Amino acid sequence: MGGDGGPAVTVAAALGLADRADLTLVGGAAEIGRVAGSRVRELRIHPTTEVLSPGDSLADVLRRRPDSSMRQALVLLARGEVDGVVSGGDTAALMALSRAQLTMVPGIDRPAIGKYLQGMAGGFWMLDLGANLDCSVEQLHQFARMGTILARHVSGIATPRVALLNIGTEPHKGPELQRLAAERLAADPSLHYAGFVEGNRLFEGVADVVVADGFAGNIALKAIEGAARMAGHLLRGWIQGLGPLQRLSLLPVRGDLAQLRHGLNPQRYNGASLVGLSGVVVKSHGSADAEGFQSAIDEAILEIRGRIPERLAAGEGR
Amino acid sequence: MGGDGGPAVTVAAALGLADRADLTLVGGAAEIGRVAGSRVRELRIHPTTEVLSPGDSLADVLRRRPDSSMRQALVLLARGEVDGVVSGGDTAALMALSRAQLTMVPGIDRPAIGKYLQGMAGGFWMLDLGANLDCSVEQLHQFARMGTILARHVSGIATPRVALLNIGTEPHKGPELQRLAAERLAADPSLHYAGFVEGNRLFEGVADVVVADGFAGNIALKAIEGAARMAGHLLRGWIQGLGPLQRLSLLPVRGDLAQLRHGLNPQRYNGASLVGLSGVVVKSHGSADAEGFQSAIDEAILEIRGRIPERLAAGEGR
Repeated sequence: MGGDGGPAVTVAAALGLADRADLTLVGGAAEIGRVAGSRVRELRIHPTTEVLSPGDSLADVLRRRPDSSMRQALVLLARGEVDGVVSGGDTAALMALSRAQLTMVPGIDRPAIGKYLQGMAGGFWMLDLGANLDCSVEQLHQFARMGTILARHVSGIATPRVALLNIGTEPHKGPELQRLAAERLAADPSLHYAGFVEGNRLFEGVADVVVADGFAGNIALKAIEGAARMAGHLLRGWIQGLGPLQRLSLLPVRGDLAQLRHGLNPQRYNGASLVGLSGVVVKSHGSADAEGFQSAIDEAILEIRGRIPERLAAGEGR
Repeated sequence: MGGDGGPAVTVAAALGLADRADLTLVGGAAEIGRVAGSRVRELRIHPTTEVLSPGDSLADVLRRRPDSSMRQALVLLARGEVDGVVSGGDTAALMALSRAQLTMVPGIDRPAIGKYLQGMAGGFWMLDLGANLDCSVEQLHQFARMGTILARHVSGIATPRVALLNIGTEPHKGPELQRLAAERLAADPSLHYAGFVEGNRLFEGVADVVVADGFAGNIALKAIEGAARMAGHLLRGWIQGLGPLQRLSLLPVRGDLAQLRHGLNPQRYNGASLVGLSGVVVKSHGSADAEGFQSAIDEAILEIRGRIPERLAAGEGR
């Protein structure tokens, strides 16, 4: 029921994936039925009566909406009736309800938000992206472990290199938190620590996992989004500013140009993971369309198949 | 003498600007003469005997290199023999020597690094970009005042809108520092406070001044640089990946494409300002070429003409 598009997006995504995923739609049965039309019989629906709204405080979310679709989806996950949850709803609400309904994996203090970003040569996992503003050295260490497991068992990299986001690469650079975390990561034989990374080299393939405190990670992620949007805007404006003959000359490459514009966004695959919980929970961007929501479902499937929570709980990389 | 190119860059920049700036070159006279050749008589040289090297610690910079070109340039500024200093040397060294040779403007605790970035519709000043990792609310307030004066008297915006970089736009979002600073800026009638801004909207013209603590500002700046580099890389790769006929079709727009790639970099004008000092000091990027170094000199000229230190000292915007 969440996200800007609500069931129009999630139902279309579910219908498109029915052949390769066993999906349960949690939400208002009438609304889902209206969107699905005659194809409603292809869907499994777990009906709920309440929907979270942007006006709800976190206290409302936790206490005054017992039958919200978001909560009930997480209840199904906690009961083992589903293997993962994907939601387009509010991130803070999803975080709060996930923590209320699921347990943390032993050894992890709080969930982190992690995402796979595209680079020039391969991509990398980055976490935390905003769930934890005041991080301890211990938490950054946990992020490194979680990112290593994601990179290994979702992205298939045997020995993921872990870097710490900082504002310089020499060991004495940056805040105390980053410097102490660097020592901690370097001392952990189960990690392949690759040093500090600055944002200007993020996309150059220097690491498979980039660890950040939630504030710095979110600042970097949003700045990247802003710069990518500006690049797309400039490319569009450039095309519009060309003379008629020049535009004509671009006709043969038009489709390629559209693909280039799409590629400018390092976050082009939708789906951010709430990592460290006892189950797989993926947040889809609120503005995602059906195709984007499918990406988020695919991400959840990869994490379920990679048995990420189980591996974390079993102490892999500890 | 600083920067990757040394006098090859700075001498060429100076020769190119001789008609509209009264320049003094501070450095090794023999090296400058070698680069300038017969045109050396067009230059005013203030000879020095020492050059800072990357191996110098800040203690070396401050105590063991009395005749470094960087220090002597700042001595000339402190004595009023020049109106501003532009250096391509190390930022930390320039910051330390500037603080040692110049005084702070009354009411400003420490210099901030500020820079004008290009957006989709006009640009904006952003500060601090890395000089102050542990900022107080008071310092963020000072950055807002300094940015307002820069936007007004360098960029010509009568009532600059000031935003605070944060990881959400609602008042309760983000770390305590940002929330307290928001209250402080909103309460200052001499500022036009426009609320929090997230990195994804930085380039959309939401503010003329963006205030950040030095850590967040540097993280954002470098991430933007990384994303812009990736966009340029993708554009180049896209062209190279086209078939021969498609490439032929691009011939009429080749020059335009080069300009587009240049435009992808929001930091395309070189020159970061050390603001809050009693004189104008501009840092040129170490990798700048002669044209880039000229941009940094132009920035210094604009700040000198705008009388930025004098206006700050006179308490404008206090």
